[in-house]
Amino acid sequence: MLSEFDIIRRFFTRPGEGDGVRLGIGDDAAVIASAGRDVAVAVDALVAGVHFPISTPPRAIGHRALAVNLSDLAAMGARPRWATLALSLPGADETWLADFAAGFFELADRHGVTLIGGDTVRGPLQVTVQILGTLDGEPLRRRGGRPGDAVYVSGTVGDAAAGLRLFGRGDDTHPLAQRFLFPTPRVDLGEALVAHARACIDISDGLAADLTRLATASGCGASIDLDRLPLSEALRGAFGRDECRYLALNGGDDYELCFAVPADRQDAFEAWSAQQATPVARIGVLEVGTALSVVDGGRVVSLPATGFDHFAEDG
Amino acid sequence: MLSEFDIIRRFFTRPGEGDGVRLGIGDDAAVIASAGRDVAVAVDALVAGVHFPISTPPRAIGHRALAVNLSDLAAMGARPRWATLALSLPGADETWLADFAAGFFELADRHGVTLIGGDTVRGPLQVTVQILGTLDGEPLRRRGGRPGDAVYVSGTVGDAAAGLRLFGRGDDTHPLAQRFLFPTPRVDLGEALVAHARACIDISDGLAADLTRLATASGCGASIDLDRLPLSEALRGAFGRDECRYLALNGGDDYELCFAVPADRQDAFEAWSAQQATPVARIGVLEVGTALSVVDGGRVVSLPATGFDHFAEDG
Repeated sequence: MLSEFDIIRRFFTRPGEGDGVRLGIGDDAAVIASAGRDVAVAVDALVAGVHFPISTPPRAIGHRALAVNLSDLAAMGARPRWATLALSLPGADETWLADFAAGFFELADRHGVTLIGGDTVRGPLQVTVQILGTLDGEPLRRRGGRPGDAVYVSGTVGDAAAGLRLFGRGDDTHPLAQRFLFPTPRVDLGEALVAHARACIDISDGLAADLTRLATASGCGASIDLDRLPLSEALRGAFGRDECRYLALNGGDDYELCFAVPADRQDAFEAWSAQQATPVARIGVLEVGTALSVVDGGRVVSLPATGFDHFAEDG
Repeated sequence: MLSEFDIIRRFFTRPGEGDGVRLGIGDDAAVIASAGRDVAVAVDALVAGVHFPISTPPRAIGHRALAVNLSDLAAMGARPRWATLALSLPGADETWLADFAAGFFELADRHGVTLIGGDTVRGPLQVTVQILGTLDGEPLRRRGGRPGDAVYVSGTVGDAAAGLRLFGRGDDTHPLAQRFLFPTPRVDLGEALVAHARACIDISDGLAADLTRLATASGCGASIDLDRLPLSEALRGAFGRDECRYLALNGGDDYELCFAVPADRQDAFEAWSAQQATPVARIGVLEVGTALSVVDGGRVVSLPATGFDHFAEDG
């Protein structure tokens, strides 16, 4: 028999207060000290059965709820610092809560993020995390790219969408399923990109959809070279060439960064990048115009390229 | 046929950027400038059918989602500045969205709050608002009260719980139903109380439950004098004396402030308060001990005094 207060105390209150936290969980509000820096704020809500399968393990749900928000801050070049959590639960299952909290805090600890507040309510399973981070200078934005800029993407793309399929078939140990269940937000890369890139977005709805957003915000078009898409060995081992490309372009949930580097800074960026832990691939270029072109063997081809829109099937 | 992006653009994006907003809605994160002040952060999630009846008009839901968060900041003595909104909706009904947004922004405008970010997802109706505000000095906390402090409550209590009953019977125009539908967070009073009170909480779960929290956090007990409970004319007109008292002690959703003023500052506080727009009533005193006593005609009586706990019926 766990009350709302028991849940917060037992699963979400941790000893000590985090860096920059003047007042943590337990009062009507938390208080943070940004030490004069601007604060970046993002919020993402995850609904069971919409953003993740009902059968998703609670540890993965806790990880994901924070990861998608960390990814938003990464895309802005901000350093994540504090988070709040609103958790709507059908019941108060202790094992579920312990696993959810483990997934959330494992990732929070990796990035020095402190949970400063929350709300636990009874209702259909939904998890809403708001993340707060600090900026040392100007944020990286979606706008800011110019025709001629090289377009890069971090890591590999298409894995999460492929992993979701495998997970749906009951395979939760396959490396692709693990990529879906435990996405890696590119926090360190995002912070470093402030010095190199002039536009950035994270890939939540699919590379094609999100690069289109970056290009549109930057007032230009873009082209992607299919031969340059970074595909993991696991993806290539599990799917044929065309399916890999389809997943890489349209699959959501990768939480990689897609960003634009001015042509005259491309060499310096690639020299720097070669020394970093997170691989990046140059996949295309920003162009004059408004379209997203997809190039295969030097020819522009047509591919279905729509991302995930929660309300698009309406009406 | 409204997409997620249409919804945000049409209903939740407003011209211009608010005070202290470096970057508003439309990128991966918003950016705010706190100008060196500490930032108070609170989050509240409202679930349809749990925190408000399914039949609640969307304008009232929009109002409430922000009001409960403003009330949290009021209890800390912080000035609300920025909010994010995560909205889970079964569909994308334009009239519903327009009314919801009207309720949200009417209240936001009254308090100079800017919506800086949001997420709109398909799912069961849930509204999660996170509020950010600035503090000029130390926050008002629940702890800080001492035995002998006078206990005050703002406005009148019990109205919202009574109004919920009337609303449930189909009467949505009764003044009590309106009090339930459109609670008034005591933002200005909260800010001013920093100079007068040394402990404060907002009444969301009922006066008895929330005063008990304040007393417990302050390491003491409290007593309430039933004859001093501020009851509205509307409440007294609709219910008998005992029912009024029950509602005033145990009814939630009033979003009044309950606070402790040191005995030697009581006269100065009451002289100041007499000049203010928001009435306050001295209802009791903090005491040595851990109990909440209820006094009727000079005698301690026993009354059911439990607030609303979302998971307490479990197990």
